[in-house]
Amino acid sequence: MQIQNKFTMPIGVFDSGVGGLTVAREIMRQLPSENVVYFGDTARVPYGSKSKDTIIRFSRQIIRFLKTKDVKAIVIACNTASALALETVQAETDIPVIGVIAPGARAAVKETKNRKIGVVGTEATIRSETYTKVIRSHLPDASVIGKPCPLFVPLVEEGFAKHSITEQVIDIYLSAMKDTDIDTMILGCTHYPLLRSKIMAYLGDRVHIVNPAYETAMDLKAVLSEQGISNMSGNPGNYDFYVSDAAEKFTKFANSILPYDIATTQCINIEEY
Amino acid sequence: MQIQNKFTMPIGVFDSGVGGLTVAREIMRQLPSENVVYFGDTARVPYGSKSKDTIIRFSRQIIRFLKTKDVKAIVIACNTASALALETVQAETDIPVIGVIAPGARAAVKETKNRKIGVVGTEATIRSETYTKVIRSHLPDASVIGKPCPLFVPLVEEGFAKHSITEQVIDIYLSAMKDTDIDTMILGCTHYPLLRSKIMAYLGDRVHIVNPAYETAMDLKAVLSEQGISNMSGNPGNYDFYVSDAAEKFTKFANSILPYDIATTQCINIEEY
Repeated sequence: MQIQNKFTMPIGVFDSGVGGLTVAREIMRQLPSENVVYFGDTARVPYGSKSKDTIIRFSRQIIRFLKTKDVKAIVIACNTASALALETVQAETDIPVIGVIAPGARAAVKETKNRKIGVVGTEATIRSETYTKVIRSHLPDASVIGKPCPLFVPLVEEGFAKHSITEQVIDIYLSAMKDTDIDTMILGCTHYPLLRSKIMAYLGDRVHIVNPAYETAMDLKAVLSEQGISNMSGNPGNYDFYVSDAAEKFTKFANSILPYDIATTQCINIEEY
Repeated sequence: MQIQNKFTMPIGVFDSGVGGLTVAREIMRQLPSENVVYFGDTARVPYGSKSKDTIIRFSRQIIRFLKTKDVKAIVIACNTASALALETVQAETDIPVIGVIAPGARAAVKETKNRKIGVVGTEATIRSETYTKVIRSHLPDASVIGKPCPLFVPLVEEGFAKHSITEQVIDIYLSAMKDTDIDTMILGCTHYPLLRSKIMAYLGDRVHIVNPAYETAMDLKAVLSEQGISNMSGNPGNYDFYVSDAAEKFTKFANSILPYDIATTQCINIEEY
């Protein structure tokens, strides 16, 4: 009975806000029978400018919340939290916890021909050099160039993704990167796939763009399979959405990103966990 | 003895982050003998995109923290918290609590000749229409045009205040405002004074710009005087700074805004209050 239940237990997915929906979308596509509980920390978003201690504290609270929903595995669908908190919370948690950095780094390592890889992300993600460390664990002589792009998230959130202002900001942040001979670049923040076409157009065909969401869902699939806890029912999964603030705004954004409309998002006080 | 102490008790000043330092600076200038305890909620910044319930909860926690420092009065040096939480927390608090909206609105009412006033601020401040309500309580037939400018805060925080990108964003947000015949505009967010010269250049001499910080310090002075709790010592005040995250980054920013260098900023866990 216990084992039977484990199959249908949901996957917990969390992010500082809406960006992680690009990862959730990929999980829903690759693992259509899995149930998913998504949490977006909209009361404390953004994470990218905050300290390691704070991001660890926030991640612990969210994991405690997700465990009340009986999740069988957790995906940290946020690069900043993956970079700063994954190791700490993995050591404390008795179910699998997966981040987005290792899958993204691995995808870049597979892709690169000249071992020169660019990474864009939040200030905290780039400062942590987590991508560099993981890439070098696979390719010790890789050259990794990181660049924080702190205006990308507000530009996306304020609806400027398709605006010419965003092209100018891309030019400011990435002109030095463009002058290098990287052949691969990782979009190291879950908001950035929403700027993908503009970044691709700017860098040109020479640079392959890696979105860690796809590989993260692949990783999750492998972990569930290894542990014998995949949901093989063949039924479509149920999806539940929780946020720490502004549920309506979240629902609207989610409906613009996900391939179906979500009914409701519930607001909880994450500080109580 | 109790009364003697009251004079030297500090003023609590709080904001979502660093923006409120523009108000603290004005208090230090106008009330140089008052001791000040400043709190910046850098773990949960920004407030401008968050809901009323959340901003009230955050404000209550901060007031509980400031009361542990024996403050004799509190200044909410954040337009969003003043717009959404002031009335609620004033009713619950046994010391004076002052916001920035009423002083800013009053200054605009004094300034305007044609009763047409513009207000720029965060999404939450503009949506609340608090400036409009307060202005109309003085000038019932005033015409108030509000405009949220959500990219202004990240542009300031990411060091783009003097960049041409910021001029373009000002044009996008304020071109419709420029076409009206407002003669006064309120900078309804404590970050915006740092864009003041660019906004003035864009709108031209015709529009008088109001920064509520000056009037807020005047209000505080009047309240302390009315209650007989002003610090008349003539000695320079002591200033203490607390944040909920990233104390070093805050210290650096504070030192670029305040007329003197602050020694240290202490980091506390605001969720415990």
